[in-house]
Amino acid sequence: MIPRDPAQLVELARNGSRTALARLLTYVESGGPVQLATAALVYRTPAPYVIGLTGPPGSGKSTLTDRLITTILTRGSFNGIDAFDEIGVLCVDPSSPFTGGAILGDRIRMQDHATNEHVFIRSMATRGHLGGLSLAVPDALRVLGAATFRLALVETVGVGQMEVEITSAADTTIVVTNPGWGDSMQANKAGLLEVADIFVINKADRAGVRETRRDLEQMLDLGGAKEWRPTILETVATTDAGTDELWEAIVEHRAFVESGRHDLRRRARMRHELDKVLTAVVRSRIGDLAHGAAYEEQIDALLRGDTDPYRAAATLLAEP
Amino acid sequence: MIPRDPAQLVELARNGSRTALARLLTYVESGGPVQLATAALVYRTPAPYVIGLTGPPGSGKSTLTDRLITTILTRGSFNGIDAFDEIGVLCVDPSSPFTGGAILGDRIRMQDHATNEHVFIRSMATRGHLGGLSLAVPDALRVLGAATFRLALVETVGVGQMEVEITSAADTTIVVTNPGWGDSMQANKAGLLEVADIFVINKADRAGVRETRRDLEQMLDLGGAKEWRPTILETVATTDAGTDELWEAIVEHRAFVESGRHDLRRRARMRHELDKVLTAVVRSRIGDLAHGAAYEEQIDALLRGDTDPYRAAATLLAEP
Repeated sequence: MIPRDPAQLVELARNGSRTALARLLTYVESGGPVQLATAALVYRTPAPYVIGLTGPPGSGKSTLTDRLITTILTRGSFNGIDAFDEIGVLCVDPSSPFTGGAILGDRIRMQDHATNEHVFIRSMATRGHLGGLSLAVPDALRVLGAATFRLALVETVGVGQMEVEITSAADTTIVVTNPGWGDSMQANKAGLLEVADIFVINKADRAGVRETRRDLEQMLDLGGAKEWRPTILETVATTDAGTDELWEAIVEHRAFVESGRHDLRRRARMRHELDKVLTAVVRSRIGDLAHGAAYEEQIDALLRGDTDPYRAAATLLAEP
Repeated sequence: MIPRDPAQLVELARNGSRTALARLLTYVESGGPVQLATAALVYRTPAPYVIGLTGPPGSGKSTLTDRLITTILTRGSFNGIDAFDEIGVLCVDPSSPFTGGAILGDRIRMQDHATNEHVFIRSMATRGHLGGLSLAVPDALRVLGAATFRLALVETVGVGQMEVEITSAADTTIVVTNPGWGDSMQANKAGLLEVADIFVINKADRAGVRETRRDLEQMLDLGGAKEWRPTILETVATTDAGTDELWEAIVEHRAFVESGRHDLRRRARMRHELDKVLTAVVRSRIGDLAHGAAYEEQIDALLRGDTDPYRAAATLLAEP
């Protein structure tokens, strides 16, 4: 019988129970006291090294993730020493609150891995977490950390602001594109440029690779000098071409991340995470506020033209 | 010599000074004490009736706006009685903080109107307003109201979440599309469906009108029964075809808006506006908080694994 107590579940997950791990992940998705209790436990252990993958639907992300997992499990290591005997995979589709079509497809495609004890795959949904997926994912990564995972993949479907926000939790972010990528990513070019550590041109056996690479290079040139200029790689996930090079690029980027400025980066990420939580907590308090009599009084005053929203907000926030 | 005092400016704007009006709009864009002082004055007068127009770049929004302005000024009225002798137009491009290409194009295209004393055109930018454009636009509409404008158009470029958010300030929202619209609006279909009171298929002299109309109808069917089913209209803005029908649809929707539930709608809008301001104010306070010693202490504790972001947030928010 699996316990309900988060502390006992963390202990079980640490000792390899996948059932306990799954329940903890449900807890962080759920929000409320159980999520807070779980967070209090799992933030004591460091997050795993996180590889983020994002890209438009149909870009071949899932097949690539699949190939990458196999490569990491068979040949992957950091420093040539630290090999990985297990990988946690979180699949996130922000556009679908109930993990719809795309994710289901991913699960089916990844089913070889799903029955592999070295890979733990989970579709993330948000069932009440006050900050939605952008907070549930960092929590879930800590849960994986507490369950002794040292490497995790986060795959998001799409290239919108939400996907970029989620991917920002990753140590190394891979943006998957295709030859003739323009249209599908145009909408959020700046956002993708900001998060990408590695660009992958998947389906590189198709026409237009050279033009796509040139476009990407130009985009990067326009973005100005940065400490890390994103690597651009070509893959054909269906034939496994380029997967080894992709892993090598991840290892190289990880070496950059760990070099020198690592503490600064960890601090910056922690600030970002705390700010998100602060905003979510305050939003939820505003939600509570909006059900009180004082709030309705301010609305009445606004409708009468006796106040303005800024004064009304100041009044409400000054209430004990 | 134009004064700097918001109260004097409101008085001048009420008496027809466009220079005073322009300065007040700069004040609401600027944020800070001057924006708060302006808001305190202009929220005493009701907002004008607001028509929102949104749609992807290239859909012909600006030409349509142009035509609509001429129609309203020459033949437009509510109830057949209340004619409009002046119209305020706000052009908003959320993707460009400095009112870039598209808006400049709009201004040039609208230049006939720009030199017309009956039309006041302004490109909105955000120069520091704590809530960005989504708060600056409602403020600006109140400024127009204080300057005795009874009708305003808000034109936003694009179909993203931000455009939808801005358009939600409108009483009647028009979503402009074209034959074969699919691709350009796919990304935010649900958002557009939620705000649209009228769909316009502009450039309706091109092939694909019937398919586009069928797609829209299907989308509306899937959206379920609502009190107001959005009207679908066809226009060819370049030849003025359909502009009269568009205005008639606006008048019809306005009659619906004013009927019965008007107070409820005004109240709901006011709540929405107050919530946005509350969130913005709190965000700005969180920003201040993030520069304090207590915040850094919590970050240190997080990095040591001594706390979690939720406990850290609670601690910070409990501080006096």
